[in-house]
Amino acid sequence: MDSQIKRRQLMQWTTGLVAASGLMGLQPRAFGSRAHARTDDDVPETPADTKHIAMLLYPSFTALDLIGPHTTFSGLPGVQVHLVHKSLDPVPTDAGYSIVPTATYADVPDELEVLFVPGGTAGTLAAMEDEEVLYFLRGKACRARRVTSVCTGSLILGAAGLLDGYRATSHWSVRHLLPIFGAEAVNERYVVDRNRCTGGGVTSGIDFGLHIVADIAGNDVAQLRQLGIEYAPEPPFDSGTPESAPASVLETAKRVMGAFTEQAQIVSERAAAR
Amino acid sequence: MDSQIKRRQLMQWTTGLVAASGLMGLQPRAFGSRAHARTDDDVPETPADTKHIAMLLYPSFTALDLIGPHTTFSGLPGVQVHLVHKSLDPVPTDAGYSIVPTATYADVPDELEVLFVPGGTAGTLAAMEDEEVLYFLRGKACRARRVTSVCTGSLILGAAGLLDGYRATSHWSVRHLLPIFGAEAVNERYVVDRNRCTGGGVTSGIDFGLHIVADIAGNDVAQLRQLGIEYAPEPPFDSGTPESAPASVLETAKRVMGAFTEQAQIVSERAAAR
Repeated sequence: MDSQIKRRQLMQWTTGLVAASGLMGLQPRAFGSRAHARTDDDVPETPADTKHIAMLLYPSFTALDLIGPHTTFSGLPGVQVHLVHKSLDPVPTDAGYSIVPTATYADVPDELEVLFVPGGTAGTLAAMEDEEVLYFLRGKACRARRVTSVCTGSLILGAAGLLDGYRATSHWSVRHLLPIFGAEAVNERYVVDRNRCTGGGVTSGIDFGLHIVADIAGNDVAQLRQLGIEYAPEPPFDSGTPESAPASVLETAKRVMGAFTEQAQIVSERAAAR
Repeated sequence: MDSQIKRRQLMQWTTGLVAASGLMGLQPRAFGSRAHARTDDDVPETPADTKHIAMLLYPSFTALDLIGPHTTFSGLPGVQVHLVHKSLDPVPTDAGYSIVPTATYADVPDELEVLFVPGGTAGTLAAMEDEEVLYFLRGKACRARRVTSVCTGSLILGAAGLLDGYRATSHWSVRHLLPIFGAEAVNERYVVDRNRCTGGGVTSGIDFGLHIVADIAGNDVAQLRQLGIEYAPEPPFDSGTPESAPASVLETAKRVMGAFTEQAQIVSERAAAR
């Protein structure tokens, strides 16, 4: 690509990023998001070539599963991110606070750049058996350019029948359950197979998000995003995977997670049998 | 420590972690958080030895600055995390959605284990000149065990006069402004100086959070947390700091951030002169 064009494009993206982040004193709602109260006046004009990203909210989802990638997506020029729920009521996360959706199922366009599902624990198992959730996902997935998840969100994709025949990953505690849905379980930070992209546990969503941004907008924009969020991790311990964690920590974690893993297997088998 | 006691303590912590994460089917509000509507019936009994963490919300704060560390704190047994705002109305983040506070300034106890301030851009500059915010922070900081921030949140601590004589850090775009508040600017992922702990940009909050968890609850618990959130980062690019980013990306970022950096300097000097 001609370097001047490339530079101009990069500037366009970055100017948008900064504007969207509120740096120019502009309010978030000016960028197509709606805060909490909605009136017809609040609905912004959306250009026809806008790319839409739909991120599912459901009760007790893990906030960071969603907010990691959301931070990498939000404010991308020409991209509108929807936080989607059945209603616009605040949705409780598994961390004790609520996040306000920006769209209902009915608000989401059919042509999606990214369809995204976060994980969780008990709330995720409930979502796997929620016909409204599964119906929404199946309906949007068939025309979405990318069907994606982070953490145990892949179990919901699986329950919706959307991982059959795909390589995929999940949180380490349930990754081995993916074959119940016809998927091949892969131990990688995030796994791309055709238009499916599934991330590992919770914090993988940041790596996943930067990958998706690069895929949509190019490496330069993803690198600019990475610099903006100063993503140069320095974990104070080396305990982020079952392979690296101290044996005693892993043993405790497995014991504590055991009940969830068992429940997840029961629910997965029930969902796959439907 | 006797290994059996240590093991029992670890089990207590982890059981609490799992329960709090909703794994046992318990609702978040059972753990001292309040969702959106509040009545007197909702206020849970809090044991006298509960440790309180207060995390400040203000309009247009950067969500991930707060949700990174919040994820590492939430559900720690014996710890109650408050998301604090002037009112209980949803607070818009700089990513276009709102988060619902769990406490007002008046609800927060005086004895805090951690006082925490997230960063942002335009919203942060406004908070630096908001006397109500500064009054709240000064009032709580004098008795808090740890006074902390992530990203440009350190500018708010500085504006409140809480970093004078301390080593501290901030987002790379404004770190050099810290001496305006009498602080020594340090280029590290997070900086501990006596009871101040300040993190760098946005994602540093996860590293910061695990450090604080280790400080409060021990290395085992922090490592268990790290395994729970699968924090074994694999950034798809090496562009997370000015030192590592490609020159063209850094140049663009500096140009785009220039207006914010300039505004931040003006506001910092004005705040320091008060």
